[in-house]
Order: sequence, then C-alpha cells, then structure tokens
Amino acid sequence: MARETVIFNNKPKIISSASIVGKKESEGPLANYFDVTVSDGHFGEKTWEQAESKFQKTAFNEALKKASLSPKDIGCILSGDLLNQCIASSFAARDNDIPFLGLYGACSTFAEALALSGILTSSQSFDRVAVCVSSHFCTAERQYRNPIAYGGQRPPTAQRTVTGAGCAIVSAKGDESSPKLSKATFGTVCDSGISDANNMGAAMAPAAFLSLRKHFKNTSTTPSDYDLIATGDLGEVGRKTIIDLFSRDGVDISKNYIDCGCEMFDIKAQDMHSGASGCGCIATVFSSFIMDGLKKEKWKRILIAGTGSLQSPTSIQQSEAIPGICHVVEIEV
Amino acid sequence: MARETVIFNNKPKIISSASIVGKKESEGPLANYFDVTVSDGHFGEKTWEQAESKFQKTAFNEALKKASLSPKDIGCILSGDLLNQCIASSFAARDNDIPFLGLYGACSTFAEALALSGILTSSQSFDRVAVCVSSHFCTAERQYRNPIAYGGQRPPTAQRTVTGAGCAIVSAKGDESSPKLSKATFGTVCDSGISDANNMGAAMAPAAFLSLRKHFKNTSTTPSDYDLIATGDLGEVGRKTIIDLFSRDGVDISKNYIDCGCEMFDIKAQDMHSGASGCGCIATVFSSFIMDGLKKEKWKRILIAGTGSLQSPTSIQQSEAIPGICHVVEIEV
Repeated sequence: MARETVIFNNKPKIISSASIVGKKESEGPLANYFDVTVSDGHFGEKTWEQAESKFQKTAFNEALKKASLSPKDIGCILSGDLLNQCIASSFAARDNDIPFLGLYGACSTFAEALALSGILTSSQSFDRVAVCVSSHFCTAERQYRNPIAYGGQRPPTAQRTVTGAGCAIVSAKGDESSPKLSKATFGTVCDSGISDANNMGAAMAPAAFLSLRKHFKNTSTTPSDYDLIATGDLGEVGRKTIIDLFSRDGVDISKNYIDCGCEMFDIKAQDMHSGASGCGCIATVFSSFIMDGLKKEKWKRILIAGTGSLQSPTSIQQSEAIPGICHVVEIEV
Repeated sequence: MARETVIFNNKPKIISSASIVGKKESEGPLANYFDVTVSDGHFGEKTWEQAESKFQKTAFNEALKKASLSPKDIGCILSGDLLNQCIASSFAARDNDIPFLGLYGACSTFAEALALSGILTSSQSFDRVAVCVSSHFCTAERQYRNPIAYGGQRPPTAQRTVTGAGCAIVSAKGDESSPKLSKATFGTVCDSGISDANNMGAAMAPAAFLSLRKHFKNTSTTPSDYDLIATGDLGEVGRKTIIDLFSRDGVDISKNYIDCGCEMFDIKAQDMHSGASGCGCIATVFSSFIMDGLKKEKWKRILIAGTGSLQSPTSIQQSEAIPGICHVVEIEV
C-alpha cells in the first residue's frame, strides 16, 4: 500500500452519530435527518462563540445518549472548528473529563478526525473515540469576512457556513452491523494558485481530485466501486470543477457523487449562492443523512472526502494563494 | 491501563531531530545546542508569517538531512503552530508532497504530535512520521497582543514567545540506540478560572499537574523514577505553581524537574520576565538540548509534558477564563 493510504485492522465501527443544526439548515432538504434543530443562533448563550461550543456539546451528548454511553466510556475526543485557536472545541471540552486532541484541518477536520479515529481504535490505543466538529455562520462571518450587521454582498461563488455540529463515536468493538471504517487516504497540501477567498470551491476541488485519485489508485478501485462518494463542501462551483478534472482523466465520477455543500440547502429557493460550507457541513450531513443511508444499507461502500481550504484572513491580506487539502475515508456496511 | 495513558507497542524511535531559532534564543544558555540560528526575524521573507513557515521548513529539512532521508521517506507530517488557522504549518507543507495532519493544541501541540506519532508508527499505519512545530515572537505578538511597533509594556508574569521551530522524526524501525517513545498520557481541558492572558503559566500549571499526576498513577511511578521531567512553557510563575501543587500532594517533583520556558533564556540577564513560551519553546528545546542529553545517556528515562493554554483574543474579550491542557510523553534510551 502506498504511504498515503492506511488500512484499518479489524475495521472500527461507527457505533453512534448525532447532528444539530441551526435555522437555515433546518429549512433545507435534509431537515428530517437531523437530531436537533435550533432556531436561535445564540442557542440561549451570550455570544455566538459560546453557542457554537454548545452545539458541539449537544452533538456529543446526543451521540452518547443514542449509544447508551456516558462520558467515561469515551477514551478521547478528536475535535476541531474554524475559529481562531479552535475555541469552540476546547471550550466545549472543558466541562468533561475526557482526553482531548485538538485538530485543525479547516473544513477537512471532520474527515481528518474520522481517519485518525480509525487508527486510534484499530490500534487499540483507545476502545472508543468521539469525533466532534462544528461551525457557525455568525462566528465564521465576523471572523473571516465582515460583521454580520455590515450586510456585505456576497458573490455567486460564495458559500454559506453551516451552523451546526456533528459527532460520531468510533469503537474498536461493537455491533457488526454498524458502518465500519476500512481505509483512509491522508491528503497533502495542494496549492493551485486560487486566491479568491469567495471561491473556496475552486481552491479545494484540485485537492479533492488528487486525494480521491490517490485513493482509487492505492486501493485499485474506480468510482463505480462505491455506492456513494461525498465531498465536504465544494459547492456548485467546486462540484463542477472536480467532475471536470476527473473527466479529463477519462473518469466519470458524477454517477454516485454528491457534495455535502450542495445537499444541505435548496440552493435556489434558499438563495445560497454556491451552497454550504464549513467544518459543520460534512460533519452534520455525515452524522445524519449519510449515516442513515448506511444503516439502512441504501449504500454499502462509500467514500467521505473532507475538503478544507487552509487560508487565514492574514494570509489573504498578504496576497497568498489558498492551499486546499482533502482527507478520504472509506466506510462500508 | 487507564484510558488516558497509551503504551506504545514496539517503542517507536526518534531517529532524528533538528531545531532552528531566532536571535534572542541564540543568545541564551542553550545556544550551542541548536542546529540553525537566524539573526533576521524575517529570515529573508517579506512577512513574519512567511518567515515562520520557513523556520518550519528548515527544521524539517535539517531533520531529514541528519537522518539521510528524503521527503518521500516520510509517511505524514503532524504539524501545528499558534497562528490563526495554523497558516505557518500549512504553508510550510505546501511545497512538499507529504500527507499532512494539522493539529491545534496551543503550546502543547509538540507533545500532542509526538504522542500521536507514537500511535501512528507503533500501529504501523506509517513507517515514519515527522513532527514539526513552530512559533514566532513577532507573529504571535501582533496576533495575540499588540503590534510590535506599539512597544507595549509587559508585566512580570508575561512570557516571551520563542522564535523557532523544532522537528522530530519518529520511526517504527531504526537504530535501537535511538531514544524511544514508550507511553503517553493525553490531557483533558482543565479550566482553573485564571483569566489573565499575561499569566499563562498560572493558567497551564494545573493542567500540567493533573496530566503528570495521572501519568504517575497510571504507570505506577513517582517523579524519582525519571531522570528528567520537562514541562513546556510554564515559566517562572508556572514552575513555582506546579512544584507547589505537587508538594501539597506530598510529592517532591523539583529534583529532576525543568521547564523549557525557564531554560531557553538567561531570564534575568536577557530581561525575559517569567521566561519563554510558545509552541516553539518545547519543540526547539526538546529537539536540541533534551535529545542531546538522551543520545549521550545523560538521562535514560524522561517525561515531556507539553503545556498549552487554549484561549483566543476573542475568548478573552468575552471574559472567558483560560483553559489549559497538557499531554505527557515518556521517552527512554
């Protein structure tokens, strides 16, 4: 096996997952799949940042509840978000007494964490690991772009950060009928020279293309071997780009392919420009809609390709391009 | 074994390490241990952020060179820094073609990465993993506190962010005489209610105390079983606090105990207030001085306790306390 792709011994199981989303997400086509929906962006807290932490805590507690577990049953939490210094995650974790591993992979964080959870559990370093990731439209807007109250116009290529959190609990042991992590391909940092912070789909699509292509190559598979291939948040623009990149390779990826950023909203009716984005996008879509399809065996072998754009407002101001990254996780039932 | 502590099968080896530091660090007592010293904070780059990336790249390339390896021999890089969205790390990695896992544990990132590298290599998920972590006084000051040109006064409890990067290469196989990772205790997020962003030693000391105490308990050891116990960057204030916390438990930790934040500078002569801090502090001190002592068998069994404070300027503005975290790695020769 090439170095990028790791095969998990004993296939760790995703024994539980939970999702919580905000108002706009609860008005989209996936509404019925989410465990909790919250109409108030503040979620009863004083600040949006505190609300985002509460989203994470709620997703974690829901996932525990669904598996009849308590916090002491979790060996460690792999967690991340988009905020400076990842405060949504660390503040969410300060109330529990669980070993905490902070990750930063921008919007690829959920896939990075899921892939790592496969290694942590299949190596029996931990019996059970929680993967918990969030984003919040209001915290992200004011940090990356403008204060919400500014009412800035957004170009057609812009995406809307998902308000929500997703949590998956991965276990070395468990019910054999649970979806299982079988392989993962870790992505490299890929800089295609895109520098428009309002077109992250274009910045991330080449990274997704490269990581998926490596996964196909390293596992001797083709897109048709999978019942579903889901990228994280390429949006309409990035979705078209990755289909096009594969077609230039003579590969048709479009058949079983979805992008979580295109699934979250009714893009036209909800006026969502290029679609949804953010750490919370794939985290919530995976923890609800995709896990549901796996458990019902609608899909038996799938790929999750978490896509991240690794810029910061500072790097943009310094005229740097936007590097992308994509981690791929293979899951089967 | 309690869930927080992981024992590494086959004890992965630290086959190489390298460090690069800035001017002030090169004037301190550890000057002769560093591989590369740079007097220009810009390191020939246009911005300090780009310089920090170059510090990371240089540390990585030096570590490779010392082990006669090339980038393709490295299975993945575990990397992090203190900048918003960890841009020093991701921009450092965009020139290589190595799978990249971004971590954020504030100043605990080096220990978090080293502990994870133990799992990644002992599980044979990867043959060889690079751990690469940086910080930079000038990027950190303007991001966390004030622009450098502002010339703000710093209270006696403040610490100076280390300008530098450290890299360690961890391998499943290798020379048996190399220092070996034997165990790790992953820390929990610990909030002791400290909210003074100029006193991070006080904020982190309780986390270091808890994680070290767990490690002693879970491995049935006491401080005297180790030839060296090194915390990351508690500084003078935090150093006194952790010694005091252990003494209340009836445990004397002071005998073989050092704090990298107190070792980096001649605190009085260089006017460094409470000492050094930053991701790069333990990264550079470990990759130089501590690795040297291990290889010369000055110490045969040691603990590295990476300490991190998990606040952000936003959380401080929102009157949140500063949660701390500490990951402990046991190393032997």
